[in-house]
Amino acid sequence: MSPNAIYRRMSYILHYAPDNASLAVRLALEQRGLPYKAVLVDRKQAEQSGPAYRQLNPNGLIPVLETPQGPLFETGAILLWLADTHGQLGPAPDAPERGDFLKWLFFVANTLHPAERMLFYPEKFIAPDHATALRAGLTQHLHQSFTTLDAAAALRPDWLGGTAPTVLDFYVAALLRWPALYPADHDRSWFRLGVYPALQRVCAKIESLPATIALQQAEGLGDTPFTAPRHPNPPIGSAT
Amino acid sequence: MSPNAIYRRMSYILHYAPDNASLAVRLALEQRGLPYKAVLVDRKQAEQSGPAYRQLNPNGLIPVLETPQGPLFETGAILLWLADTHGQLGPAPDAPERGDFLKWLFFVANTLHPAERMLFYPEKFIAPDHATALRAGLTQHLHQSFTTLDAAAALRPDWLGGTAPTVLDFYVAALLRWPALYPADHDRSWFRLGVYPALQRVCAKIESLPATIALQQAEGLGDTPFTAPRHPNPPIGSAT
Repeated sequence: MSPNAIYRRMSYILHYAPDNASLAVRLALEQRGLPYKAVLVDRKQAEQSGPAYRQLNPNGLIPVLETPQGPLFETGAILLWLADTHGQLGPAPDAPERGDFLKWLFFVANTLHPAERMLFYPEKFIAPDHATALRAGLTQHLHQSFTTLDAAAALRPDWLGGTAPTVLDFYVAALLRWPALYPADHDRSWFRLGVYPALQRVCAKIESLPATIALQQAEGLGDTPFTAPRHPNPPIGSAT
Repeated sequence: MSPNAIYRRMSYILHYAPDNASLAVRLALEQRGLPYKAVLVDRKQAEQSGPAYRQLNPNGLIPVLETPQGPLFETGAILLWLADTHGQLGPAPDAPERGDFLKWLFFVANTLHPAERMLFYPEKFIAPDHATALRAGLTQHLHQSFTTLDAAAALRPDWLGGTAPTVLDFYVAALLRWPALYPADHDRSWFRLGVYPALQRVCAKIESLPATIALQQAEGLGDTPFTAPRHPNPPIGSAT
């Protein structure tokens, strides 16, 4: 039996918290119709920093996806692994669009995502009395990055990663949702999705997918989670 | 003719600067014996920020690899694309070690690499009078990340990414070289490679590869570029 056949028969375990980076992975799992069990990481108890969770991901970050290859972490790695293992979520390794897909996937993973992480949790990177200055610099940097990505998206008629929704689209949609909501206790007026029209179009397309509707219910994301996000009201767990 | 056959016949163009992130890509190209032409990006003229270079990479970052799929950027993306296109530089997409390989590759690309970029160029992320505070926080964060990666490396008998050198090893070796040297005008005593013995072992192994010896000459890196780095003395161009 090929590895792919094994994976088709088993169910994944996704360690998630509502509206965390697990969101992008969960969209991919739903979109592809892959069986998975969602296990809540209780952030109110800082479960992601505890010893049990660190056995899965020593960095204490959400998400983890348990697979036959062991526990995978890093949102971008999980997304790419799912796309390559199951197909239909991005260009195959030998496809002519693969290089373009990878360069933007890594850009999102290594520029957009870390900048948002620092924007939301500056205390992990700098002493408290410098947090405001760091946030100010990061919002400028993020605006520039979104502008660059928007220009790339404007050249594509459909989705960021191809002619069907890809893991790159799901990743970007999540990263376009969060700046509208977080940090909850700080000014977020620097971010307006409409400034990036091609990315806004991608968000609107993702909102119409059944995968998104499933997530809206599972994580309490409301009916416009990407184009006009509201703070989540999840049936269990909490985002922060 | 398969795409791979096409790529085997052509020569890549690598836009590089000595001792920049292009180093990891160049190690991979040399290791795999792939034909490429190295084109200097003149940092003294800030060529990487000029309009011609931004046509290749709108982010103005080094490296870019010109391929039949267009110009690729993002070090991690280029490395993974080369590994998948040519083999032998990492686990294949359907290999059982693929998940483990991807999660550390993305960790390196999205945690280690951005933290070093901010450490070396804080002015791109924060107002000047907060740069010292940012550097202090980042060095702590980097030490934690290296410690985590070292623990993972200690479980592996050979290389980080498998039983032969992989693009992950090359990427990590470059990221272990730079903190010993940069920023040149600031205290770097926080970093000592010996604190991470498993990573030190990987560095020593990479140093013995013919690929490294080729790079030592091409970019003036000296004879211990990873275990005991010295400031580069390249025949042309400059690192900063």
